[in-house]
Amino acid sequence: MAKRVVIVGGVAGGPKVAAKLRRLDPEAEITIIEKGKFLSYAGCGLPYYVSGEIKEYRELMETPVGVLRDPEFFEKFKGVKVYNRTEAIKIDRAGKMVEARRLDTGEILSFPYDYLVLATGAKVFFPPVKAVDFDHPGEINARDLANVHALHGIEDAESIRWMIAEKLAKKAVVIGGGLIGMEMTESLVKSGLEVTIIEILPEILPIFDEDMGILVRRYCQSQGVRVMVGERIERFEARDGVVKRVITDKGEYEADLVVVAAGFKPNTDLAQRAGLEIGVTGGIKVDMFMRTSDPSIFAVGDCVEIENLICNSPAYMPMGSLANKQGRVAAINIAGGQEVFRGALNSAIFKLFDYTIARTGMTVRQAKELGYEVEYALAPAPDRAHYFPGAQGVITKLVADKRSGKLLGAQVIGSGNVTKSIYALATALYYGGKVEDLSSIDLPYAPPYASAIDNICVAANVLRNKLEGKMVGISPHEVERKRKRGEDFVLLDVRTPKEYQNVRIPGSTLIPLGSLSERIGELPKDKEIITFCAVSLRGYEASLILKKHGFLNVKVMDGGIRCWPYALEK
Amino acid sequence: MAKRVVIVGGVAGGPKVAAKLRRLDPEAEITIIEKGKFLSYAGCGLPYYVSGEIKEYRELMETPVGVLRDPEFFEKFKGVKVYNRTEAIKIDRAGKMVEARRLDTGEILSFPYDYLVLATGAKVFFPPVKAVDFDHPGEINARDLANVHALHGIEDAESIRWMIAEKLAKKAVVIGGGLIGMEMTESLVKSGLEVTIIEILPEILPIFDEDMGILVRRYCQSQGVRVMVGERIERFEARDGVVKRVITDKGEYEADLVVVAAGFKPNTDLAQRAGLEIGVTGGIKVDMFMRTSDPSIFAVGDCVEIENLICNSPAYMPMGSLANKQGRVAAINIAGGQEVFRGALNSAIFKLFDYTIARTGMTVRQAKELGYEVEYALAPAPDRAHYFPGAQGVITKLVADKRSGKLLGAQVIGSGNVTKSIYALATALYYGGKVEDLSSIDLPYAPPYASAIDNICVAANVLRNKLEGKMVGISPHEVERKRKRGEDFVLLDVRTPKEYQNVRIPGSTLIPLGSLSERIGELPKDKEIITFCAVSLRGYEASLILKKHGFLNVKVMDGGIRCWPYALEK
Repeated sequence: MAKRVVIVGGVAGGPKVAAKLRRLDPEAEITIIEKGKFLSYAGCGLPYYVSGEIKEYRELMETPVGVLRDPEFFEKFKGVKVYNRTEAIKIDRAGKMVEARRLDTGEILSFPYDYLVLATGAKVFFPPVKAVDFDHPGEINARDLANVHALHGIEDAESIRWMIAEKLAKKAVVIGGGLIGMEMTESLVKSGLEVTIIEILPEILPIFDEDMGILVRRYCQSQGVRVMVGERIERFEARDGVVKRVITDKGEYEADLVVVAAGFKPNTDLAQRAGLEIGVTGGIKVDMFMRTSDPSIFAVGDCVEIENLICNSPAYMPMGSLANKQGRVAAINIAGGQEVFRGALNSAIFKLFDYTIARTGMTVRQAKELGYEVEYALAPAPDRAHYFPGAQGVITKLVADKRSGKLLGAQVIGSGNVTKSIYALATALYYGGKVEDLSSIDLPYAPPYASAIDNICVAANVLRNKLEGKMVGISPHEVERKRKRGEDFVLLDVRTPKEYQNVRIPGSTLIPLGSLSERIGELPKDKEIITFCAVSLRGYEASLILKKHGFLNVKVMDGGIRCWPYALEK
Repeated sequence: MAKRVVIVGGVAGGPKVAAKLRRLDPEAEITIIEKGKFLSYAGCGLPYYVSGEIKEYRELMETPVGVLRDPEFFEKFKGVKVYNRTEAIKIDRAGKMVEARRLDTGEILSFPYDYLVLATGAKVFFPPVKAVDFDHPGEINARDLANVHALHGIEDAESIRWMIAEKLAKKAVVIGGGLIGMEMTESLVKSGLEVTIIEILPEILPIFDEDMGILVRRYCQSQGVRVMVGERIERFEARDGVVKRVITDKGEYEADLVVVAAGFKPNTDLAQRAGLEIGVTGGIKVDMFMRTSDPSIFAVGDCVEIENLICNSPAYMPMGSLANKQGRVAAINIAGGQEVFRGALNSAIFKLFDYTIARTGMTVRQAKELGYEVEYALAPAPDRAHYFPGAQGVITKLVADKRSGKLLGAQVIGSGNVTKSIYALATALYYGGKVEDLSSIDLPYAPPYASAIDNICVAANVLRNKLEGKMVGISPHEVERKRKRGEDFVLLDVRTPKEYQNVRIPGSTLIPLGSLSERIGELPKDKEIITFCAVSLRGYEASLILKKHGFLNVKVMDGGIRCWPYALEK
């Protein structure tokens, strides 16, 4: 008899299970139950629909050859029965039956299953915010205000786009400086809005290290965006059901559009009601076969807890790419095969105007929290041969375990080709690579695409110098703190006079590398000396010369002036 | 006492040894002997100097901050003594002494060494070509003709650029359809020349598989370049020392510029005269420490034989990126450290107009020659979400060992972002990855940069289907051969009628996937059926439907119509 497979959720992981299972088992009876109207749409594309770069939302639901993935498509091309606008409300695990309600008619339907797949996705995390409406006294629900939106589905995107088109929105406040918040910022700026980002943490991009966060924030500000960090939203002030002002603990911001991008949490309501095990991160607990605590029930996508491949601890990583991988694995196992989902690296990438910002694995902060002894390197470099026209800058940060020399994570940002680096680094991490491996990895080279010594090799070599004790680094952040504390040290710029004249760090001392040996007497042996250049290769060479001359307290500033995020003199 | 280190060769590997060694050993006496005038220049950038994209050749010799790497630079910034226009002529191994001749004065110099490094580079391979000059009877040396150039040094590039600037060259013949030949072709076309490429082998790009070569050739032809394959150069016809016509075994080509790009061979003259061991590939034999058969002599760069990391056999891979890695390793070992050069993957990349063409590891042909049982997959796909504006096509080819499932190599070509894929694939290969690993690798995803299922995962999944026997592939090349032989088979296009109307393969039969089950009776069970679609995912689904209906002789055409390099009907 044909297997009956019921899938709850029709956006990403669910349809993937259906499509793959159909290819493996031509006989299976496959049913998708989806609460919303739309199926199998590219949720990650919504910011680009809001900005109008994608003209119609239909494009997010089409196959590459322009066929709409509606219920008829699933029926006709995949042999999959779809019930949309139908909410699964109960699982009868003993009777192997899902109960669902047709949202338009209230009709209750029963779906018997041999295998059930939960692909119930995520819920928007809406921070606790008070709201007052001056036209309607008494406290109201911030979420219900007409111009407050999360970006969770096509309907949200539609509303925001409509407001922009109707010129109802000119000033937007984006709550949350994470990935979605940044993507929405770009989208809204491109739509002509004035945007303010409000982030509760001390820096934007909490899944990046602070040194990268500040560089991105400065870039974002250079694009005309107001970015407030370390500010807590206190309340929304509305008039007649529409937000007018956002009040934080530090300021007040006019707004005619508020986009809440404070994160997601797994949607496990149905699973919890059915008594399925929930993991420590709040996601549905699954084994490596994507099977829940009930062997007849699988779960995939933004509702599950998975394993962090680097540290093997439970993790929540709501990503469309992982949902697809998990869906594939679940389908193979349901069809009687054996396939495992190994876990993930928390790889992520996003576009912010001309910048690409990407990460994989662990940040310094995360690794330290997990008890690793950490070393890192910051390497700014052009994305192709420096003499090749159009070369753009990229900053590569590598994070390593000091004891084992193993790579723990990487962050790459800049206006240049970031993808090549982050793809290679995620791959190295996936294979448990060591920093020393990266010195000799044979990446293809030609001047339009890379330097003869690839950025990854450069960063790895800097990190090896640090791991081997040949170089002691200090972050620009720490240097700035020392300056603010009024500490007595020499900030030694070893660039050329021409470079120095062009731009310099306030209070720095210039001795070009070429004259350092002869002018060594000008430097005090009893003070800390922090060397740097454009990217800190010459800074490193200077530190070696100083050590040769008996200087003991010498550090090199990570990433040189290129990674200096504070004010510069010109 | 300070170590005396003499380096013969000052272009790529040599200066790298000097710079790295200086950082490790501030006391060492380091000397570079270079035959040419120029030092430490980016030879790989020469095609872009010829085209004028790089304005002055000085740019190829400058540091990223614009400092010229001339002998004074090495002296002042690196503490390295340089003798340029000085040819090393003899090594006295017993006496540890190099003898060299100043080319401008004839003066003979002696350089005692503790360690010697040979970085003597490569020589241009000049194919045996007869030359006749109608104004000067008798045979002459083809190489001596004024408008015949290899592209080996700045002087060659200067001459070609001068000919273009003076309008002396309008029609160019490029001999050799390899990487340098293709880069020079782009350069010359951009300079306004009519270009004919003549390749002796049946297809261009011999380090790629033929199926990729033909796609690149068709693209190159679409850019107005004449590409002749399987033609042997017979002779150059000249007038007054200048080539006028190139005669092959099949045709005659007018030419006022001939660029010879038929490959390189290691320059081992000095090493051979000194009795150092030479490897089977013709390169100087070195161990993993980059030490030659004489423990006091190291060798790096285009003059050495290295190990192919995939099959552990000796290989010759003249690449600037490898020269730098080897230089680093040699320097560390000379300084008393211990570092190994592991070998390389023969990774390569080049730009051809809007295409990027890249490879790593082994091709199907190479792997078969080495006795591997090989399977491969061809996956065409957009480089970002298909709905994202500006998405460009990329074709990914993966090559695997059928027995172990190990990845053996990859080739990626197209107008889209090729670098991210080839970087990840080279890294996977470096770590000895298996095809199944690539299904679950967590590469970062966002619509501007990738599809939710990354191209690498798509290609890996196709390859796994083949390895597991779920899909039998057939190459477009083989299909075309069958057609030419008049074989009786059905070439079944399962795309939509709209796609079919737009463009189709002559002689193909259309049954859209959605109607295949109901129209199954139209297909003959006794004939071979070859299915395809745009990229062959629907083609694969069609093959599964056919098998379900009892069809036994079913194949899927690799890569669908996107990888079909022959004529199409519109």
